Amino acid sequence: MATKTSKDIRNESRFMVLRTVYARHTVTRAQISAETGLSPATVTTLVGELVEEGVLREAGQISSQGGRPTATFQANPSRGALLAVDVAETYVRVDLFDISLARLDQERVDLDPGAQSIETVAEHIRGCTDALLGRRPELAGHVLGAGVSLPGQVDPVRGIDVFAPNWGWHEVPLMEALERAVPVPVRIDNPLMALATGELWFGAGRRFRQFVAVNLGTGVGAGIIIDGQLLRGRGNSAGEWGHTTLIWNGRACPCGRSGCVETYIGAEGIRTTLSEIAPEHELLTVTHHRDFIERLMRAEATCDAAAQEALLRTGDYLSAAIGNLVNLLDPEHVSVLGWITRYAGTELHDRVRERIAQECLPGPSSTLSIEFTDADGEGVSLGMAVLALEGFLERVGLPSPSSALSPAAASTGPGTARTGWAVPHADASLPRR
Amino acid sequence: MATKTSKDIRNESRFMVLRTVYARHTVTRAQISAETGLSPATVTTLVGELVEEGVLREAGQISSQGGRPTATFQANPSRGALLAVDVAETYVRVDLFDISLARLDQERVDLDPGAQSIETVAEHIRGCTDALLGRRPELAGHVLGAGVSLPGQVDPVRGIDVFAPNWGWHEVPLMEALERAVPVPVRIDNPLMALATGELWFGAGRRFRQFVAVNLGTGVGAGIIIDGQLLRGRGNSAGEWGHTTLIWNGRACPCGRSGCVETYIGAEGIRTTLSEIAPEHELLTVTHHRDFIERLMRAEATCDAAAQEALLRTGDYLSAAIGNLVNLLDPEHVSVLGWITRYAGTELHDRVRERIAQECLPGPSSTLSIEFTDADGEGVSLGMAVLALEGFLERVGLPSPSSALSPAAASTGPGTARTGWAVPHADASLPRR
Repeated sequence: MATKTSKDIRNESRFMVLRTVYARHTVTRAQISAETGLSPATVTTLVGELVEEGVLREAGQISSQGGRPTATFQANPSRGALLAVDVAETYVRVDLFDISLARLDQERVDLDPGAQSIETVAEHIRGCTDALLGRRPELAGHVLGAGVSLPGQVDPVRGIDVFAPNWGWHEVPLMEALERAVPVPVRIDNPLMALATGELWFGAGRRFRQFVAVNLGTGVGAGIIIDGQLLRGRGNSAGEWGHTTLIWNGRACPCGRSGCVETYIGAEGIRTTLSEIAPEHELLTVTHHRDFIERLMRAEATCDAAAQEALLRTGDYLSAAIGNLVNLLDPEHVSVLGWITRYAGTELHDRVRERIAQECLPGPSSTLSIEFTDADGEGVSLGMAVLALEGFLERVGLPSPSSALSPAAASTGPGTARTGWAVPHADASLPRR
Repeated sequence: MATKTSKDIRNESRFMVLRTVYARHTVTRAQISAETGLSPATVTTLVGELVEEGVLREAGQISSQGGRPTATFQANPSRGALLAVDVAETYVRVDLFDISLARLDQERVDLDPGAQSIETVAEHIRGCTDALLGRRPELAGHVLGAGVSLPGQVDPVRGIDVFAPNWGWHEVPLMEALERAVPVPVRIDNPLMALATGELWFGAGRRFRQFVAVNLGTGVGAGIIIDGQLLRGRGNSAGEWGHTTLIWNGRACPCGRSGCVETYIGAEGIRTTLSEIAPEHELLTVTHHRDFIERLMRAEATCDAAAQEALLRTGDYLSAAIGNLVNLLDPEHVSVLGWITRYAGTELHDRVRERIAQECLPGPSSTLSIEFTDADGEGVSLGMAVLALEGFLERVGLPSPSSALSPAAASTGPGTARTGWAVPHADASLPRR
């Protein structure tokens, strides 16, 4: 069984330094020290390492009153570029970032509905990447890494997509095709972990160490941050809040269960709610999810009673589902993200605000903060750029633990590996002496 | 924002040493090192500190082949005693433990049904304690601490019971009455945290760093262990799985919500299920929860169809509710504890084994282990003895972080404190540059 080491502490401190630099753009060592609580000596050492590796650079000098001038630091965009790939069920999008996480350019291609092979997906990624780098030949050879978000349950340690029901993917190996398409080190993950990583670096993670980052979109999930670190679980599948029960034996879910949260508050779930209220409603013919939600909100604003009722019920479902997270985890904070918040954030937030106290036990709800944030898809690619950056830093010996892969797997020796869930009824009991 | 320090690491290492000693009774330094992965030098230092404080003692010497004799160590029962108090809705029970966590004696008094004041409860605790110490006058002055488990949402940092619906308690201050009743340092908690602490020290915690300890009883809950540490949440309320939704708008729950997991798989929930199947069933007149479950199991064994159906449905509810935990947290393991498992563990386990794969996403379920353990109430008092021991060790400067109180509160500066849950809709978005 592993325990924390002084190296772990150093990695966590490095993450705090980097996050401060990225969030504030230009900082002095003293500002980093003040913001992180790290000692000036530690900050000097960590900044020195990052400057030596070319990740940070001295940006200038500022003079304090009467004192010596003080160096300011920022991320060093000339160090190289990062690719962030967002593979969704309806598109493939590749963004090019510099190492300061400034977005330089973007390419996107729509996918036909229906099943995709990893080879087709990789071909699209290659096409987008070639187009991006064709426009910036100076970056050839300077791409430091790529982060690729894929739908479903992605296991970055094994390099496979465990389960992506909408494409019929089960245990699909990803790395060979992706590394052929993008000839730089590739880190894979799913959109939920990407969004939560972005929120940890740039959002609520700057103020809270225990929070939940809820993602509302076609799929829904909840990134769980405990003690400043993203919970990945044993196989990178933690956070599948969309596949927890809201109504046992309720609506059928593509995952095979019924009554999952996603079937009520995901985009398709909201459509089902509208169809229950008004089976003949004209918006039910709109198949594209964003178009549907956008037009639903327009209808709601123009006093379409069915649209209003659908939104209200969605808010009730969302309140209960957030209440479950709060009662189970007692977090400091909940961030609600995802593209649905762009369209329906205000209305859903109003309803959650009305309902949440009734859905939570008195203790947790008394000090909880909830924020709805319009991130609209940018969050996934930013998060994947951060993960690509984390992967690069790890390779050059400067790791940060903020979204470390598979701590459970790493800490469990082969002697404790389990090969099946079904363990016989144990007679063992707690020791009684 | 706080980060881990080398002191934290030392505390975690100390916990691992102590747990090894307690679990194995008598150990050499080399065995501790082998079991924990700590260096021999670290083990020597930590064992030395614990011997100096009298918590451990040298037990003897064993000779290895041809080598020098090696010292063995064990907990030192002459160092003093610990009190573990289990206040339930129907009884108060006080157990006396020595510092090796051997149970020396026990006193118990039944409570009348209905509301109780903390003063009455404290009076019972005092009576039991006086009786226990009256039988062992040699321990007078040598009680090192007391752990008191109380029902509901208990906040050990503020020293209050936030919410105990069955007694109508809201924000009830506890410490003054308890410290008058037991004139030693008191650490309060709830039964769920106590059970999970016992499981962390003596059960699954020895094999897993990410697991869930489910408690099935009159109330139900789920202690969440992440990275070898019990998750307490912001106000010690994490783990209220019993108050997450199984059926939205379902059975009314004393907590004020409806359709909570507890209303389906708690003792009262099982009775409701039986009443839905057979409204005139004779067992419905049995009001005492344990009697009811015990007789239900006897009826089930004698082919009472309604009892069998009630058990089956309870197993289905339990499977779905465990599936929610697995999908959300992707743990390595689930331990199912609590007094209901003593009576119905085999039957419920059989049904969960049949159903769980359908209730979990493919990734998490493929490597999950589930064990049902018959702890039957002993777990709560053992866990409170451990918490009393942890409190004592903290006071003498030898803390362990295994069930640290309120890490969130400790790590959040006053600048980030929140005073209300309702934060206005934020326009802030992830940075786009």
